[in-house]
Amino acid sequence: MDIASVIGLILGVMLLVASILIAEGASFGAFIDYPSLMVVVGGAFAAVLMAFPLKNMLALGNVVRTVFLNKQHSIPELIELIVSLAETARRDGLLALESKLQDIDNPFVVLGIQMSVDGTPQEVIDDIMRTEMDAVATRHASGKALLDQLGRFAPAFGMIGTLMGLIIMLGNMDDPSSIGSGMAVALITTLYGAIFSNLLCLPFAEKLGFLNKQEMLAMEIVVRGVMGIQSGDNPRVIAQKLQTFIPPKQRAERRAA
Amino acid sequence: MDIASVIGLILGVMLLVASILIAEGASFGAFIDYPSLMVVVGGAFAAVLMAFPLKNMLALGNVVRTVFLNKQHSIPELIELIVSLAETARRDGLLALESKLQDIDNPFVVLGIQMSVDGTPQEVIDDIMRTEMDAVATRHASGKALLDQLGRFAPAFGMIGTLMGLIIMLGNMDDPSSIGSGMAVALITTLYGAIFSNLLCLPFAEKLGFLNKQEMLAMEIVVRGVMGIQSGDNPRVIAQKLQTFIPPKQRAERRAA
Amino acid sequence: MDIASVIGLILGVMLLVASILIAEGASFGAFIDYPSLMVVVGGAFAAVLMAFPLKNMLALGNVVRTVFLNKQHSIPELIELIVSLAETARRDGLLALESKLQDIDNPFVVLGIQMSVDGTPQEVIDDIMRTEMDAVATRHASGKALLDQLGRFAPAFGMIGTLMGLIIMLGNMDDPSSIGSGMAVALITTLYGAIFSNLLCLPFAEKLGFLNKQEMLAMEIVVRGVMGIQSGDNPRVIAQKLQTFIPPKQRAERRAA
Amino acid sequence: MDIASVIGLILGVMLLVASILIAEGASFGAFIDYPSLMVVVGGAFAAVLMAFPLKNMLALGNVVRTVFLNKQHSIPELIELIVSLAETARRDGLLALESKLQDIDNPFVVLGIQMSVDGTPQEVIDDIMRTEMDAVATRHASGKALLDQLGRFAPAFGMIGTLMGLIIMLGNMDDPSSIGSGMAVALITTLYGAIFSNLLCLPFAEKLGFLNKQEMLAMEIVVRGVMGIQSGDNPRVIAQKLQTFIPPKQRAERRAA
Amino acid sequence: MDIASVIGLILGVMLLVASILIAEGASFGAFIDYPSLMVVVGGAFAAVLMAFPLKNMLALGNVVRTVFLNKQHSIPELIELIVSLAETARRDGLLALESKLQDIDNPFVVLGIQMSVDGTPQEVIDDIMRTEMDAVATRHASGKALLDQLGRFAPAFGMIGTLMGLIIMLGNMDDPSSIGSGMAVALITTLYGAIFSNLLCLPFAEKLGFLNKQEMLAMEIVVRGVMGIQSGDNPRVIAQKLQTFIPPKQRAERRAA
Repeated sequence: MDIASVIGLILGVMLLVASILIAEGASFGAFIDYPSLMVVVGGAFAAVLMAFPLKNMLALGNVVRTVFLNKQHSIPELIELIVSLAETARRDGLLALESKLQDIDNPFVVLGIQMSVDGTPQEVIDDIMRTEMDAVATRHASGKALLDQLGRFAPAFGMIGTLMGLIIMLGNMDDPSSIGSGMAVALITTLYGAIFSNLLCLPFAEKLGFLNKQEMLAMEIVVRGVMGIQSGDNPRVIAQKLQTFIPPKQRAERRAA
Repeated sequence: MDIASVIGLILGVMLLVASILIAEGASFGAFIDYPSLMVVVGGAFAAVLMAFPLKNMLALGNVVRTVFLNKQHSIPELIELIVSLAETARRDGLLALESKLQDIDNPFVVLGIQMSVDGTPQEVIDDIMRTEMDAVATRHASGKALLDQLGRFAPAFGMIGTLMGLIIMLGNMDDPSSIGSGMAVALITTLYGAIFSNLLCLPFAEKLGFLNKQEMLAMEIVVRGVMGIQSGDNPRVIAQKLQTFIPPKQRAERRAA
Repeated sequence: MDIASVIGLILGVMLLVASILIAEGASFGAFIDYPSLMVVVGGAFAAVLMAFPLKNMLALGNVVRTVFLNKQHSIPELIELIVSLAETARRDGLLALESKLQDIDNPFVVLGIQMSVDGTPQEVIDDIMRTEMDAVATRHASGKALLDQLGRFAPAFGMIGTLMGLIIMLGNMDDPSSIGSGMAVALITTLYGAIFSNLLCLPFAEKLGFLNKQEMLAMEIVVRGVMGIQSGDNPRVIAQKLQTFIPPKQRAERRAA
Repeated sequence: MDIASVIGLILGVMLLVASILIAEGASFGAFIDYPSLMVVVGGAFAAVLMAFPLKNMLALGNVVRTVFLNKQHSIPELIELIVSLAETARRDGLLALESKLQDIDNPFVVLGIQMSVDGTPQEVIDDIMRTEMDAVATRHASGKALLDQLGRFAPAFGMIGTLMGLIIMLGNMDDPSSIGSGMAVALITTLYGAIFSNLLCLPFAEKLGFLNKQEMLAMEIVVRGVMGIQSGDNPRVIAQKLQTFIPPKQRAERRAA
Repeated sequence: MDIASVIGLILGVMLLVASILIAEGASFGAFIDYPSLMVVVGGAFAAVLMAFPLKNMLALGNVVRTVFLNKQHSIPELIELIVSLAETARRDGLLALESKLQDIDNPFVVLGIQMSVDGTPQEVIDDIMRTEMDAVATRHASGKALLDQLGRFAPAFGMIGTLMGLIIMLGNMDDPSSIGSGMAVALITTLYGAIFSNLLCLPFAEKLGFLNKQEMLAMEIVVRGVMGIQSGDNPRVIAQKLQTFIPPKQRAERRAA
């Protein structure tokens, strides 16, 4: 679970709730208006539905789950795993890796090692693993694009809602005492648009971009490691090569361990 | 037909209509003002007419049709088709493909196979097919640019209309009771600009960009497939090569089939 | 003459004029204020004068003329011309082209053919023609940059004028009846800035960018054609090569002709 | 210590404080509102917590310290140091450098020289030093990204706070005398957002970008110098090569010295 | 002296002054407020001080001087000069150039020729001259960045000042007659920010970018010319090569001369 995302979301919501609780003369009721929510969130989704294929929209749930449930890859542990597999392969042969596969929970390592064990030619393994990398990058990119667009259309529909509210209010000015409340309702859509965009869509989109960079690095390390194992490289050489991907400080720790 | 685009557009319009129906004291009449529509949409079209050649403007209908009527290419089916053509060519010779052409509804495949059957030299086929790809990409890019510019000029003319409405209203303040309605009318152009841009132009532009990427992928696969067929490559080799364009999961399904 | 630019400009102006005519209680007088025009357009020109060398500013008239008076190059006709010149050169020798030069109204073709006839070495011709292409591209780019900057500074000076008008108005609030008209005058500069930018500068800048792309394509075709003619290539080969620059549909038409 | 950053921050704060002191009828109390501070700064941090991994957030203190406590590298002095090390190595052998290491306070030079003394192969030294450069660049880039995002979300939460304040105020218009103070409080969040962004986050982000460029240059010089020393190059040749990184004027000064 | 920059600045200032003189009921006094000037200009400088190293700030005077006092390089004259030097070198030997150096007022030409006369090896001359080019480009780029940032922070501090003014005004609403003047003062900072940015910083930044491009072209021509002179190339060949940098029209003029 991604602690930072969870804390950030809870913190953000709590701050807004607390600031209403503290404010004199404020009530939650004044901030809840379902038609406004419908215009802003519904409108943003409608625009995004037009902009993307249906299947990308349907994957939105997975995208949000990724933001909250991603496991941070420990790159040093990943290198540790690959080096230990390389040692097994060196000592007992490539086929000895088959029995180890069920203990590995990184499916990309499993994919690579399985193909090695099956005797798939090296260039085919490389090709298939890199296509998988591209597929993951594309999935992340299209998830990020979807969130970015939601975060761009939500404030636009917030403004559309406010303009509509103002026009309705201005047409009913016979009763001046209702001007204040009419205007308050009109402003709520802009508020919803700003919150939906800045507390949900945009931070999630940034996070996805970050996770993608991190995952590509981990996958690159796996591809190089599997190639090394299949070529029968010395495990120490593999370790040395993969460690150039991590900063010296973490490298030193590993050596000490 | 592109279901997502249709649903998105209907959803967006319905949300706006519903929010007017629900709102107390609101009437549709307050939201309909033909001169305002004329200034915003007409002004945006005038600006875009100046910015693009006439023929690009005239192609706008086709562009919008593309957004709604595009067929999603099924990449796996396309590969299936090319591989089956390769098998026929392998078994019965290139000329045997001629009889199959009328059953193919992908005109780009037909173009490539027809040239192969006619004995056109490989580099000429490659050249002509890539020029066609460039032409499609350019057509999509200029359609997208046009929608992007419409979506950029519409809010600008919305603001121009609102400023004009405010200046007229401020010059007629003798009757204070008319201020509200004058201001409501002034705001309508900004509302129209925001809706025209965010519910039509910008989502359509995004969709075109997406469709272009997808079509370029499909066309690339066709070009490589036709080249392979003409060279008399083994159908299994062709299948293997083309499948690197699709993610392993879909590839596996195909194998199972 | 560029019909689209002319229609677009007339349409845009007519829409704004019509919307004033239609509006109840509006008079043209309320929209005309010379000092405001002076601040917005003068201010934008002052900023651009500081940003660009004097000679670029002086070329602005030519830039605007280009937007309205450009001839759309017919690429197929251009290829036709080059191929016919190649046929003459093939049949009667390079020198025979000299007598044809006066009938050609494309000065870039004349430049290239003249140098070929004069016996200028091929690499010098290529060098000189490409330098001319760079000069045209640079001229277009600096014209576009100038219009883009005008379109960026005009709204800024519109806002400056409105702020000045508001400050003057707020300092003279003794007579409340003048507030409305004072504010109307203040808003006029913002209106002028928005119209000057969105109905003139920005669409013109877009058009120049488009014309440049088109002219570069035409010039590239001329350079390649002249090179082919000088090398004594077969006219059919030249035609084939140049036609890869145009989409198959137009190519087919030409063949039919 | 980075004098410019310190002066800039003190100057900016003093200007704002002075302008309140000078203003007639203003009191500091009117500008201090803790819940507003909480919404703006807390909200921006919440959004950034969602967008970045926790460890990047925790490094924010270091990032800010870097902005204020960075030592400006003197590139000429750095070259001086490397050349003197090269002279020692030339005269007394590589091992003689070991005794000099404790006098060097640039840890990156120490890292490189130590590896040279240890007999680490040249390509391994190069690899490790460049990985360290990448790690520093990545750390700076992620620090800059964090500050850029804080500077982008703070004004957004400022606007959210103002909208909330306006809605509360508009719902309590029974007492007109409270409208002014309610609106003042509502505007404070926008003010906080603008100050937090423009006086802290954005200038700091710019500075980090600048420091990174400067540090990369210094590290590049160290890497090249260490490579030269290990290869046993003539110290004068090393000096000449490294001096191409600094402008001739500073180079001349050095020669004179 | 750069006539366009001077005219532009005077024109801009005069337009603003004239529009105040013309306006009914306006006085200069209403537009002058020293604390506001302090907040906007001081605040922008404070932010830029934090963002850049101190020495870049101190060079701001030179940057502004460059905008106004730059000499437009005449590229054809520069080529003329280099060709005449090449002719002297051809006729009387490289050393004969020494006596001509004092008549040349382009220091970059002097630098190159002096090194040639001194017998500096060709690659060292090339290296030193290109490092000098990089230094000039970097100096221009950092000057441009500084002006761009000033032009970005000035409106931000203008808005900060206006918010502060509004909050003060809203806290003192007991005397309604003072609302107008309070608001006028509040708006002055936004006005100052917009003028400082759009009439000074941004046009100057654009001009610097333009001057840099022009100077890089001139320096490139000098480098190539000096290389040609040192290699003892035929002056006519040097002339021909350098003239490819200028458009044919100017080239023709030179030939005619």
